[in-house]
Parts: sequence; C-alpha cells; structure tokens
Amino acid sequence: MTNTLTGTHPLSGQEVLIDQLRECGRLFHSRGWSVGTSSNYSVVLSNDPVELAVTASGKDKGRLEQTDFVHIGADGSPIETNQPKSSAETMLHVVLAEQPEVGCILHTHSVWGTLLSDHFFEQGGFDIEGFEMLKGLEGIKTHEHSHWIPVFENTQDIPMLADKVRERLDDPMEPMTHGFLIRKHGLYTWGKDVFSARRHIEIYEFLFECVARKIGMPGI
Amino acid sequence: MTNTLTGTHPLSGQEVLIDQLRECGRLFHSRGWSVGTSSNYSVVLSNDPVELAVTASGKDKGRLEQTDFVHIGADGSPIETNQPKSSAETMLHVVLAEQPEVGCILHTHSVWGTLLSDHFFEQGGFDIEGFEMLKGLEGIKTHEHSHWIPVFENTQDIPMLADKVRERLDDPMEPMTHGFLIRKHGLYTWGKDVFSARRHIEIYEFLFECVARKIGMPGI
Amino acid sequence: MTNTLTGTHPLSGQEVLIDQLRECGRLFHSRGWSVGTSSNYSVVLSNDPVELAVTASGKDKGRLEQTDFVHIGADGSPIETNQPKSSAETMLHVVLAEQPEVGCILHTHSVWGTLLSDHFFEQGGFDIEGFEMLKGLEGIKTHEHSHWIPVFENTQDIPMLADKVRERLDDPMEPMTHGFLIRKHGLYTWGKDVFSARRHIEIYEFLFECVARKIGMPGI
Amino acid sequence: MTNTLTGTHPLSGQEVLIDQLRECGRLFHSRGWSVGTSSNYSVVLSNDPVELAVTASGKDKGRLEQTDFVHIGADGSPIETNQPKSSAETMLHVVLAEQPEVGCILHTHSVWGTLLSDHFFEQGGFDIEGFEMLKGLEGIKTHEHSHWIPVFENTQDIPMLADKVRERLDDPMEPMTHGFLIRKHGLYTWGKDVFSARRHIEIYEFLFECVARKIGMPGI
Repeated sequence: MTNTLTGTHPLSGQEVLIDQLRECGRLFHSRGWSVGTSSNYSVVLSNDPVELAVTASGKDKGRLEQTDFVHIGADGSPIETNQPKSSAETMLHVVLAEQPEVGCILHTHSVWGTLLSDHFFEQGGFDIEGFEMLKGLEGIKTHEHSHWIPVFENTQDIPMLADKVRERLDDPMEPMTHGFLIRKHGLYTWGKDVFSARRHIEIYEFLFECVARKIGMPGI
Repeated sequence: MTNTLTGTHPLSGQEVLIDQLRECGRLFHSRGWSVGTSSNYSVVLSNDPVELAVTASGKDKGRLEQTDFVHIGADGSPIETNQPKSSAETMLHVVLAEQPEVGCILHTHSVWGTLLSDHFFEQGGFDIEGFEMLKGLEGIKTHEHSHWIPVFENTQDIPMLADKVRERLDDPMEPMTHGFLIRKHGLYTWGKDVFSARRHIEIYEFLFECVARKIGMPGI
Repeated sequence: MTNTLTGTHPLSGQEVLIDQLRECGRLFHSRGWSVGTSSNYSVVLSNDPVELAVTASGKDKGRLEQTDFVHIGADGSPIETNQPKSSAETMLHVVLAEQPEVGCILHTHSVWGTLLSDHFFEQGGFDIEGFEMLKGLEGIKTHEHSHWIPVFENTQDIPMLADKVRERLDDPMEPMTHGFLIRKHGLYTWGKDVFSARRHIEIYEFLFECVARKIGMPGI
Repeated sequence: MTNTLTGTHPLSGQEVLIDQLRECGRLFHSRGWSVGTSSNYSVVLSNDPVELAVTASGKDKGRLEQTDFVHIGADGSPIETNQPKSSAETMLHVVLAEQPEVGCILHTHSVWGTLLSDHFFEQGGFDIEGFEMLKGLEGIKTHEHSHWIPVFENTQDIPMLADKVRERLDDPMEPMTHGFLIRKHGLYTWGKDVFSARRHIEIYEFLFECVARKIGMPGI
C-alpha cells in the first residue's frame, strides 16, 4: 500500500525496528561511542530458531540506511542472497539472541569502556555498586545493588568468544546479565527491545564514566 | 479553536508549560544529564493545594511527549484517571511545590554531580564560593558569596526523604535554598518558572564541573 | 522593501550583525561557554563616539532574539527609550569599543578559563607559547610566539574594572592585545568583526583546554 | 542540465567530492577538531600529475562553501585564475597526493593530538597497540598490531617539512602509513577516498584520547 500523501510505502514491522537502530546509530555516533564505522547493532526477528537483522560490515553508524542491514539465521549466515557482508562479530549477536526475551543487541566502543576493560582485565571484571543509575538496568529496583561486569579477552576468533559468552550466559551459579566488556574493544548489552537495549547503553556509559573518573582522579 | 493553517489546536497554558519541560529534556539529554530514562521534571499548577504535572515513569527524556506527564495532587496521587504511572520520586516534587513561588522543579543526574555527592557526603554537603556564575542562582547579586549544597543520603524510601527535605526547607536558622544533591544519585533544583529552574540546572552543572575538576586535578 | 516570497522585510545592516551574534550565542551555549544566561556580546556601530548594540541582561544565550539587544552610547547608557536593561558589564564593552578597529566584543564563561584564571591569578596572568593555534589570533604569523593573557581580579564595580582595562589597553610599554581573563569569572576577547572575535573565542578555548589539561594531568 | 524542480544544476563530480569535505568540516568543527578556522582538507583529482581541490586559507570549517576550495597543481600553485588563496600548508597535501591510491587528505587540530604530539616529540613518535579500533585503519586486520605515529617538529617552512614527509613516505625500510602528527600543531591522515580518510580521523582521535587519558590519569 502506498502512502498517498508522500508517495512512499508504509514501513514494515522489520523496517520500523531497523529505523530504531538507525536512530541509535545517530545518537551513539554523536556521543563518540560508535565512531570510525566501529560498533554493530541487531534486532531479533525470532529467538528460536534465531533470525536477526544485523548491521552490515564497515558502515558509518551515524548514517545507516535501511539497506545497511543483513538478514541472518541461526548459524550466522545470510538467509537471503545478494546481501552485503554482515559484521565480523555476527556470531556474538546470534548467541545473545538465543536467550529468550532478548529483542535487541547493541555493541559500542567508548573511551571510558575501553580504559576500564583494560584496567580490570586481570581480575576478570568489576563491580559497580551504590549508584541510583543502576536502576536503569532492567529488573534492578534499588541502588543498594552490586552489578558485576565481566571482561573477556579480545580475540579475532569470534566463534570461540561466542562459545565463552554462551557458557557465561548459561552459568547455573551466576548467569551473566545485561552486558559485558571485551578488553580494549567495547561493550555488548541487550534488552527485550531497542528501547531497553539503548537505555542499557546509556546507563553503562554513564556508570563507566563515573567509575573511571573516580579511579583516574584520585582526589575525587 | 483550531489553527486554520496547520489544522492543530493552539496549546493550552498547561501544554505550553509542558512544552518547556520537553525542551529541557532534549537539552539535558544531549548534555548527558538525563540519560537512560533517568531524571524527572514538573511544573506547578497550584502551590496551595499542590497540583503539578510531572513526568511519567520510565520515559526517554530526550523525546518527551505531551502525554508523558501525569497530573498529581497534594498527596502525590494522580488527580485524573487513566494516567500513566508518575515518577517514583513524585513526593519530592510535591514537597518542593509546597513552597510559595516555586513554579518548576527539575531533577537531573550528571557525572560530576554524582561524584561530588559521594565525595562530600560525610560532611553533609559543600560550599561553592567566589565564582561569578553563582550570580545565576536567583537572588545572588555578587560573586563574594558562599553557597552551601546539602547532600542527602540516597534511599528508596521517598516519603521519608521528602520529610527530611521539607524539614530543611523550613529550617528557621538556615533554610535550604536553590537545590540539593542526593548521594550517588542526582540534583534537585527549582525556580519560579521553567526558565529559572533550567538556568539553575545549567549554573549548578557548570559549578560542579569546576569544583570537581579542581579536586580531581590537583595541579590545577 | 518587503520580501515578496516570505512576507518579511530584509534585514538592516545592524540586524545582520545581531544575527551573527545570535549565531555565536547558539554555538557558545552548545559548547558550554555561555550557559545559565551568562556571557554578553556586542557589535560596535561606531568607535568614536562609541555606539554599540549589546545583549540585554539575563537572556538565554542559546536563544537570543533581535529584541534582546540594547543600543548604547559612549557613557554606557541606552540611546533609545523603552529598551531592555543592558548587561551589567556594558562599560567593559564601551572601553574595548573605544579602540579603533574593534568591531565586536565577546565575553564568555568556560570551565577551563575559570580554572586557569584562578590558578594564575597571583602571577597576574600566564603565557601561552609554541602552539600552532596561536596563529588564529589576528596578526600572529608563527607558532614561535609567546602570548600573555592578563588575569584581572573579579569585582562587581565594573566602572573601576573598566578603568583598569583601559589603562592596560593604552599601556605604552606592553599594550594588552586580543583578550583577558577575569578571575573565576570569564574571558573577554574582541576583533575587527564578529567573524574575527568569534575565531578568537574558539582559539582561546582550545588553548585554555590544552594548558589546563597539561597542568592538571601531570603525566601528560 | 538544470534540475527542473529546484532550478539548480546537478552537482559535478568535483562538487560532490567537495560536498563530502564540507560535511567533514561540519562534523570536525562540532567535535572541536577544526575550530577557529584551523585545519585544511583536500580531495585528489589526479595523482600523476597531482591536481587537487584544497580548502582556501582562513575559512570557518563548520561552514565551508563550494567556493571555499582552490584548484591546485603539482607545484602547489593555483591552476585557475581568480581563486582565493590556498592554505599555507598546501605543499603537504601535494606530497601526500603524489602517493598512488590517495584520494583525500585531512588535517585537523585536536586537544588530545596536540598534547600527545608534545609529550612524545623527543622520542620521535609513539606506538598504539592492542586496541580493536586499530582495525579502522585501512588494511589492519587484527588488534594484535602495533601502529607507530611519527611526530614531526613544527615549522613555518612548509616546503622543508613537505620534503621530510616525502622522505618518510618513501622510506624503503619502514614507510610511513596512515598518518602523522606535527608537534603542538595537529594530525595529517589520508585515504583512498573521503569516507576512508574521515574514518581515519575518527579512529585516530579515539585512540589519541585513550592513550592520553591513560598517561594523564595514572590510576587508570
């Protein structure tokens, strides 16, 4: 059906979701969290079997187009032909999309996250506690909470890293929630929808800046 | 009456005020003071008995709509039916709105405010003095002034915190003026109208950055 | 003459200059150099006798209107009736406008300038040297240059401060050029036109950040 | 051919490239990397013999017009008559454009780059290693890489500096790739097209901030 006023077709459900990711890209690029074509974003079209639309490789995140996304299946391969190459980190998105109730996965690269991921690498992660802003992470109801951010070693072997991430997500003792860092690389977080995952990015970046400034400016 | 050019109705007085808060939200979100759906804002429709329009819970402050505000009475409950849930901190707005001549209350979360609120918590607050920018706080006529910012302990028991705030506002010896911080949480400030309260936010954030950098960068 | 397409009148020469100041305001507010209604700007309509258009007191610099400027004469008083109150610092603009070839005066308040003005107050100012960006100050042709920024004590007695500034401008041994700081207050700079004065603001702010970070982060 | 809808001519190939540089200018000015009319940008129209369009001297990089570019030949002189004066650093662009496959050269001035260029001047440059973001530099496939940024002494003798740069580009043992700094001055980088060179600017600025904060905030 064509919109008779503008001559354009109405957006499909998938196009609406991709538009939400495009807006994330504009915001995150302007904040300095997705510069230089870094980062990748996806929306989950199905959790079981996994189907998702993920950013194509090498795109400027501040100017994403509808055609800059790839339709991917449970093995990380394109479902449709004639698509652009998907991000090298697609399998991390797939593993996160296997979790029920995950609707969107966002991966960004910030200066504060990069510095913290290196600082805390040896101890495997770090706790963030006592901040009101922790309540912005889904399900956390009070600032009297301690949230652990795991840090994984960086690697170009994404399938191996994806396996490690799956293991931590499924850890029966202490399942990983909300997000993780990769050393000198960046942040992964997720949520039930784009709105929720985007909120997690903003919350994590705020908390990372608080934690990093407190470490780096000893007086304060 | 319908605007014949645009087909829209002119804004009511309350809608104009809410539009001013929406613009605050866009500004504060872009500055990083209201990210991740944090913060809440209100305009006072009546001081006695208190009636105010306050942001609904969980909204993105960079994209507030007219429908993202709740009409609240003197006990912090909605006056109208079928409204969205108001912010959890509504009673703090009510207590501040009880003060005569308060027309707008703004609550934000910045990195510098968060760090200072923790740094100075043990001593109950801190003085800001000697800055020309202090003159941006209503009624202060000279930089030769010392302004005390109280810091309250953070809590999820908002009615209890509201009582403490009311007590400090009514303190016959040293009534609290202009604003206060909550530990590792954020800033409350107010003014006779949105313009004035918004100016206070900008002034406090400027001063917080000056004070925090001076503490955290000892050489300077 | 009315613009037949838009129904508006073309801008007068003075209105064009004021529009250039309004654009400065939007830029400087977004950079954090003119927040909370701080700062004031003027264009010089005549150097001898002095006539200038200066920002009215208490306006949001990010949203200046044509009507937010006051027409002022050589004694700092309004030339026309029914004008808004001019900035309290108008006499500083008048003294600077007495200099031949000064067409625009800009006064801003930044965090780095505020910190440096306090740090270097006791020694009366500080040298900035060796930076390529110094060439952005009118007439400086090489980075092999040392530029002295005087720092004046802050005061609410503007006529007295204006006298001190005039004395330094007329100093036969070492006349003050380009700009000065007022302690814990802000920067004054000027130029032959709005473009030139605005460039000086941007150059000074860049250099202030370089100098202040180098002092405050001893490792770097 | 005139566009019948807008009454404008379609852009020529060169105009399209210049529009891409104008957009770089808006972005870099807003980031604080090209303030105060600093910086200069060029697109290469021919590598052999060199022809390029480079920014005219003294323009505000946030508001570049099509007419703010100069058409230059292999000796750095204007090819056409009646052109504005080209940037004083034009010969550096010419030397870089002599490299085959260089389509765009960007020169910017940031605070972090300025501080690092001074900090590492004595040792002639510095290594950046282990960051995922290094993969944003053309041809680098893994974070397990060490990238050397040379730092040249600043000078107003641009032809002499251009000779030194050519020597380093042609160094048979260790040819200079991607970019270099000039002491207390700024960054030069380049790429096969505007998109690629712009990505390099964003990548370098991100990495400079990481490296400089790590040095300047010893705790982190």
